[in-house]
Amino acid sequence: MPEMRKDAITGNYVIIAAERSKRPHDFTLPPEQKKGQSCVFCYGSEDKTPPEVLAVRPCGGPPDSPGWLVRAFPNKFPAVSPDSAIIADGPMDNRVLNAIGIHEVLVDSPGHNDSLGRVSDEQAELVLVSLLKRFQALSGDSRVKYIQVFKNSGAAGGASLEHTHWQIITVPVAPTVVEAEFTGVKQHFRRTGSCIYCQLAENEILEGERIVEATDEFVVLTPFASRFPYELWILPRNHKADFGRVTQQEAKTLGRVLRRTVRRFERAFNYPPYNIVLHTSPIQRGYEIFHWHMEILPRLSVTAGFEWGSGIFINPTSPETAAATLRDTDPQVLED
Amino acid sequence: MPEMRKDAITGNYVIIAAERSKRPHDFTLPPEQKKGQSCVFCYGSEDKTPPEVLAVRPCGGPPDSPGWLVRAFPNKFPAVSPDSAIIADGPMDNRVLNAIGIHEVLVDSPGHNDSLGRVSDEQAELVLVSLLKRFQALSGDSRVKYIQVFKNSGAAGGASLEHTHWQIITVPVAPTVVEAEFTGVKQHFRRTGSCIYCQLAENEILEGERIVEATDEFVVLTPFASRFPYELWILPRNHKADFGRVTQQEAKTLGRVLRRTVRRFERAFNYPPYNIVLHTSPIQRGYEIFHWHMEILPRLSVTAGFEWGSGIFINPTSPETAAATLRDTDPQVLED
Repeated sequence: MPEMRKDAITGNYVIIAAERSKRPHDFTLPPEQKKGQSCVFCYGSEDKTPPEVLAVRPCGGPPDSPGWLVRAFPNKFPAVSPDSAIIADGPMDNRVLNAIGIHEVLVDSPGHNDSLGRVSDEQAELVLVSLLKRFQALSGDSRVKYIQVFKNSGAAGGASLEHTHWQIITVPVAPTVVEAEFTGVKQHFRRTGSCIYCQLAENEILEGERIVEATDEFVVLTPFASRFPYELWILPRNHKADFGRVTQQEAKTLGRVLRRTVRRFERAFNYPPYNIVLHTSPIQRGYEIFHWHMEILPRLSVTAGFEWGSGIFINPTSPETAAATLRDTDPQVLED
Repeated sequence: MPEMRKDAITGNYVIIAAERSKRPHDFTLPPEQKKGQSCVFCYGSEDKTPPEVLAVRPCGGPPDSPGWLVRAFPNKFPAVSPDSAIIADGPMDNRVLNAIGIHEVLVDSPGHNDSLGRVSDEQAELVLVSLLKRFQALSGDSRVKYIQVFKNSGAAGGASLEHTHWQIITVPVAPTVVEAEFTGVKQHFRRTGSCIYCQLAENEILEGERIVEATDEFVVLTPFASRFPYELWILPRNHKADFGRVTQQEAKTLGRVLRRTVRRFERAFNYPPYNIVLHTSPIQRGYEIFHWHMEILPRLSVTAGFEWGSGIFINPTSPETAAATLRDTDPQVLED
């Protein structure tokens, strides 16, 4: 029997409908094949990108040269611009805002065919510490109201280039998705005096059936009202509103946890397309009770007419089944 | 220069970033090829579906036999169920609801390889009148709070079967997407005493640059804050909250307008995947100032990490460019 679940934080509905996974499919998407050709993100192609803004070079060396393990630079085709100018407003109450901001790329491994799940734990630590450094650097600009850190992997995940990378986009507004979460956080806080993410993390550890992994610092779980099959949240157990306040040690631990988590679904689903999305407090006062976290969204299903029309997501895999599968997948195997 | 636009009704932000369309792509998705093999939705396979609930048979004939032009039946793999039972609530404030409802399929042409843009105008009329009849029949059930009518076309549009069809799912709640639109409608009404959709339709006809087609009854336009490239709205010029109150004559006209609109982007983009989504008032009192409409969402881009994280959509094609392209594409050519 299908069941409808309402998310405690956002109020969004999902339908968990295991029956739907049995329907026949005319379309079977072939696994995405990487071309494997070297690209502008590759080691040795540093002159083909805008000048770097960060690089980890253990043996030193000049900027925009080889020798790096992680490298960040402005996106050559930015979605926002530091020079954006205000234009006339639209018809009726449609407003036009300055799309002012910075759009950066962070390449998280020199190897064209590497994946976040297959790099070493030490490399995963470097990646998260580098993301933290760029986050902190960008948050100093008073025009920045939000910093969206995300990773698109695979064509169906929205990546245009296959070489593993992250993106950082700053925007001049607090995004609606974070505002909706914050509304839920505030309501719970007013009623209980506690952070709903903190409570959820501890409660889920006690219940256990949606836990993939729990360490002293982080909980990896499949949310009760999962929109997507194998949707995952990584919740820090130490309450902080703002990712920018994370310590380097916390970022390193997150790197290891994230690598293991990605490795689990790389192995369970043979490198599916996916997105990783940071949720953090907007850069302004008033959001101190927010609780930063990461969402990992494997793209194993297609968001279609029903979801776009209603906002209700149909998910053919229960989060309890998903958590059990991922728990049972060894995240330490680095070779295929 | 990219610009940020805020939708007058929902308050959602989009970034119109034409520069993004110039970036290189490692992944080039091949056009979706239909297998073309007959399926359970085909003429002559009527015994392979659940018993029909509606069929148009110009020359008569028994139910679940050939001779039909349009045919509707319950979905064999439903996302909701009339027998759904309430289960225990989830952890914290996560609620579980009865996923009670009806899930139907409406096959809009007997031919396996037909498309909504290529059928005759008379067939398009039959399709919309049939959808209206099923909508009206389902709205009589007091447990139904919303009827989501939608069409998924192509694998990237979320269709599991390639034979052209629509789906109808009833749900026991008012969906968040419609509630968000209704909030915008109410705010505008309080301030101006008018319906924002009515005003927008007339205003856009006067401005002209986002109009694809305007008849006495309907306006086809690209919304000012388009989330997707070539996103289209069909707004009725006659204010009605509820699609179920549409007359058969209005449904026929909508069928013709919709066929022409679909034909435009079928020709402009060689049969891209797409979704069509009806937005209508929930089936309860208090929504009389809502304005039903249709959204057509060609799936020419991938919703990725930035969109999922922020709710802000990056659209590489301005709606003004999109409208001009579609206006210039002849919708009357039925042969390829």
